[in-house]
Amino acid sequence: MKTTVEETLLSAIRTIPDYPKPGILFRDITTLLGNARAFRRAVDELVHPYAGTKIDKIAGIEARGFILGGAIAHQLSAGFIPIRKKGKLPHDTVRVAYSLEYGVDEMEMHRDAVQPGEKVILVDDLIATGGTAGGACRLLTQMGADIVAACFVIDLPDLGGRAKLEALGVEVRTLIAYEGH
Amino acid sequence: MKTTVEETLLSAIRTIPDYPKPGILFRDITTLLGNARAFRRAVDELVHPYAGTKIDKIAGIEARGFILGGAIAHQLSAGFIPIRKKGKLPHDTVRVAYSLEYGVDEMEMHRDAVQPGEKVILVDDLIATGGTAGGACRLLTQMGADIVAACFVIDLPDLGGRAKLEALGVEVRTLIAYEGH
Repeated sequence: MKTTVEETLLSAIRTIPDYPKPGILFRDITTLLGNARAFRRAVDELVHPYAGTKIDKIAGIEARGFILGGAIAHQLSAGFIPIRKKGKLPHDTVRVAYSLEYGVDEMEMHRDAVQPGEKVILVDDLIATGGTAGGACRLLTQMGADIVAACFVIDLPDLGGRAKLEALGVEVRTLIAYEGH
Repeated sequence: MKTTVEETLLSAIRTIPDYPKPGILFRDITTLLGNARAFRRAVDELVHPYAGTKIDKIAGIEARGFILGGAIAHQLSAGFIPIRKKGKLPHDTVRVAYSLEYGVDEMEMHRDAVQPGEKVILVDDLIATGGTAGGACRLLTQMGADIVAACFVIDLPDLGGRAKLEALGVEVRTLIAYEGH
């Protein structure tokens, strides 16, 4: 019997209870990344709808979005844009504040990382409240990017991030969802 | 006239003077990563000697090594191992101290990220003093990995990192070198 993508990925993700604090089930994708077959299936499945589209750049969110984003950029023969925590990029940046569970932080992108009209796919491992991904979309839009999609391996739909991005007009693609958060 | 890989990469890297402090020439690879052709050439050129070898895993060093390492893992159909700054990995880790320019820091890898005898390629964007890469090699060796090579886009040979890794018996592959550091 052929294994579905969802089964392959669910069985490759490790759930760690009470991390980073009591009551939280942490979805650890390092076991998925370390599994060559699961990693390749996740990358291929995330982007196959866009294989016929010219994608200029993949924007990856630090740090796990860098791993998946690097692989996806290679798969689609696109360039890569790092979106980083503030103070990490060496050249002229644009910066945006975004909400965390407690308080706010800031992220940055190089001002010349994207040209107006370029087609970009945003990548991260997981979408929860959408604070980080929403901030990244604002940076990309501010510099004139055409956001073709935002891709995540894991969706935590009860936290509302997917709906938040869709309300901004961004197409969201995810592979597996954990309900009940 | 055909452009050599070295010319393609050198012209895609941005040099930022006096960053992060006066007198330092910072080699910024974000412009290379953002250039689809240069990014692909770097990835393909780094690993083509190993295309006929079974490589189980790519170990990438946080954070820029995640981008290149993710792409290389995809290229070689290998799994990916994140080597991270301390406190970032959610499961049981092994930890090693390594030297920075001033003082020491620690990095970690999940204890189950590699199995004894697995063939691993270590990836980062740049090798300078070899403090970080040497620490990563110690983690991998401690868990029984067979380190096939350590790959970097940029070598700063005057800082001695390449020689340090080679003295550990690690094959080092780099694409371009900046002398005079």
